[in-house]
Amino acid sequence: MLQFLSMSESELLKVKADLEDRYNQFKAQGLKLNMARGKPATDQLNLSMKMLDTLNSGSDMHSSTGDDCRNYGLPDGLPELRELFAELMGVDDNNIIVGGNSSLNMMFDAVSCAMTHGFAGCEPWGKQGHIKFLCPSPGYDRHFAITEYFGFELIAVPMLATGPDMDVVEKLIHDDASVKGIWCVPKYSNPTGITYSDETVRRFAALKPAAKDFRIFWDNAYCVHDLTDTPDTLLNLWQECRKNNTIDLPIFFASTSKITFPGAGIAAMGASEKNLSVLREHYSFQTIGPDKLNQLRHIYFLKDLDGVMDHMTKHRALLEPKFRTVLGRLESELGGKGVAEWTSPNGGYFVSVDVLNGCAKRVVSLCKEAGVTLTGAGATYPYGKDPNDQNIRVAPTYPPVAELEQAMELFCICVQLAAAEKLLNK
Amino acid sequence: MLQFLSMSESELLKVKADLEDRYNQFKAQGLKLNMARGKPATDQLNLSMKMLDTLNSGSDMHSSTGDDCRNYGLPDGLPELRELFAELMGVDDNNIIVGGNSSLNMMFDAVSCAMTHGFAGCEPWGKQGHIKFLCPSPGYDRHFAITEYFGFELIAVPMLATGPDMDVVEKLIHDDASVKGIWCVPKYSNPTGITYSDETVRRFAALKPAAKDFRIFWDNAYCVHDLTDTPDTLLNLWQECRKNNTIDLPIFFASTSKITFPGAGIAAMGASEKNLSVLREHYSFQTIGPDKLNQLRHIYFLKDLDGVMDHMTKHRALLEPKFRTVLGRLESELGGKGVAEWTSPNGGYFVSVDVLNGCAKRVVSLCKEAGVTLTGAGATYPYGKDPNDQNIRVAPTYPPVAELEQAMELFCICVQLAAAEKLLNK
Repeated sequence: MLQFLSMSESELLKVKADLEDRYNQFKAQGLKLNMARGKPATDQLNLSMKMLDTLNSGSDMHSSTGDDCRNYGLPDGLPELRELFAELMGVDDNNIIVGGNSSLNMMFDAVSCAMTHGFAGCEPWGKQGHIKFLCPSPGYDRHFAITEYFGFELIAVPMLATGPDMDVVEKLIHDDASVKGIWCVPKYSNPTGITYSDETVRRFAALKPAAKDFRIFWDNAYCVHDLTDTPDTLLNLWQECRKNNTIDLPIFFASTSKITFPGAGIAAMGASEKNLSVLREHYSFQTIGPDKLNQLRHIYFLKDLDGVMDHMTKHRALLEPKFRTVLGRLESELGGKGVAEWTSPNGGYFVSVDVLNGCAKRVVSLCKEAGVTLTGAGATYPYGKDPNDQNIRVAPTYPPVAELEQAMELFCICVQLAAAEKLLNK
Repeated sequence: MLQFLSMSESELLKVKADLEDRYNQFKAQGLKLNMARGKPATDQLNLSMKMLDTLNSGSDMHSSTGDDCRNYGLPDGLPELRELFAELMGVDDNNIIVGGNSSLNMMFDAVSCAMTHGFAGCEPWGKQGHIKFLCPSPGYDRHFAITEYFGFELIAVPMLATGPDMDVVEKLIHDDASVKGIWCVPKYSNPTGITYSDETVRRFAALKPAAKDFRIFWDNAYCVHDLTDTPDTLLNLWQECRKNNTIDLPIFFASTSKITFPGAGIAAMGASEKNLSVLREHYSFQTIGPDKLNQLRHIYFLKDLDGVMDHMTKHRALLEPKFRTVLGRLESELGGKGVAEWTSPNGGYFVSVDVLNGCAKRVVSLCKEAGVTLTGAGATYPYGKDPNDQNIRVAPTYPPVAELEQAMELFCICVQLAAAEKLLNK
């Protein structure tokens, strides 16, 4: 196998011509495949169908508190579910609010609350003038979008194999009180799939931000979403912060969107008493309380942490072949050619591919023309702008394996084609 | 029956002593009844239990659009439900967003959105300095609380039998660009139970506010909640605004909280294209979309407007005796005595009682001491302060009829006792 970089021009031209042939054959097939979002597939959704039967007209509608879950009340959610999320998130159950169907909504509410009312007795963020938010990149576009919507300056922080570059984080927050927070997906990070190292977590717990109202948004979206026999483990930030007396720094988030149903799951947040007093006040004005029947449904179906872990092995059985397909194709088509690097995650929803500098947009656009929609190039960076035009997020979960084979074959053709074009135009 | 005001002191003392006897007998019973909130009773909740059976593991999970309701997507909600809410609210179905389980949440989101991002291209409300909101009073405490939370000055506007005093409203909004909105429950208003007259609705549609970003928050919470054979009808504000070219003025809200389940119903909002473009952008950052399975459940169960109206006759059958009990007791115990006035609504969830000036707090506190919790005196006014200490909201829906009889007998004793105390201390 020849490295593209060591090819002569004539070799490259020949390779390019072959790739163009293969590409045009794909184009002629008129494919229509979508790998843009981290969406569970239909067979994954089917795993939770029995949940709908657990709550019917003959069911007990009461929480362990004796409250009728059909009526108003219980703003923190059902105690049973607060306990379960406490275990999933590694936070005390008294510090959990169980909400509606979207953890993104709870993150947005937390930012919005800080914008208009502030944390830690500080002025609301919206009244503090120019403010900044740290965005480990590549990262999750919808996180970045929330803070962009609220007018923050987004600061990209490099993602390493151990998590965000903590030297950079520490320096930025130590010197600048206008830095108000950081977005984190600490386990099976979106999109690189890495899990923050113990040292990274310890350094988060030991942060000394200039801003008293600096907050770590710890989105543990993939806390139980293992895909291999060697799952990653994440050090417990809650406990580390207790040790460091920094318990007000983090706000924790998780949901069952990728455990039960993406559109009809349950989300939760966890935080210190001081943070919760601000957030609970916000919710006391914002809502009449969460949908407790869907909470009851989840408890009846999942039962406890063991129930969740059992259920996740079923997801793994469906997802593992898809990740194998993606990684296998990448290896067989691109391995040793020096045109791309990629991660091989132990869990989560994504494979992150770095192509040659300046080629990501071209790859995504070539794929699109041939009928395969990928996450937009740049989406994993603040403002949708990847400075190296290099990173592409591959989302293997939604298409069936057969389609994934096709899509990845095309993807690998496009990666090489874009590389050949680039090298020939130098 | 003697008017309290025309009694001599000795007559009053005798009446007071008799009332105290009756009061103390009540106190000895150790009652524990709650009439504080407009909560549906258990038998009302039971009316919707079959809804839980409509969506089970064998059901079709697809919307009419072909979307799998278990997955992400459809941020405006299911088309079928948008149509239903369009009929309930009198708004075009293209102008409806169907959301989660709380219309209060959608109102809060709309206010929050205007605070941080603004309507009509204006500066965000949060950046405009001192701003004001109109609160027709007596009115709904949780409406007022939202705008208080966001730092508005709350301006009480008198409620008349025809709705808010429109002379006052027109003057306030015409002269003052810092007035940004008004809270309205136009049908079976909370708590007075009146429905805005056609003229009031027409005057709302013809408003010419100084502020370009003034908005009418039109919470049609009781749109189909009739309790008599002579239901009120509300003129359609959406159509009136179309005629007046003022379609950007109102934002409409409704929910099934008091149709299906308070804690697990469906809420919706309606607004002009211009308003929706602002609100849809907000939601596109805020959430991954509403719980579409609960939406599907509602469509399978309620089906259409006829289905809703049929269902509401069942609620009426349960609620009518309760309202009859309350009104009957008020009439038999207080009628002709000159110590209270009350409304006799054709629908909704409340009876509004005005006691003698300066007596409301005393009545609520006497009731509480004897085991009956009422809505706090003053709750129906901005900042919880009734300037005349006169209005009490009675919520007949939650207790069974037998308990309601007891509670109302006690209530009427307390109203008279407070009146006697007041007249004797003059």
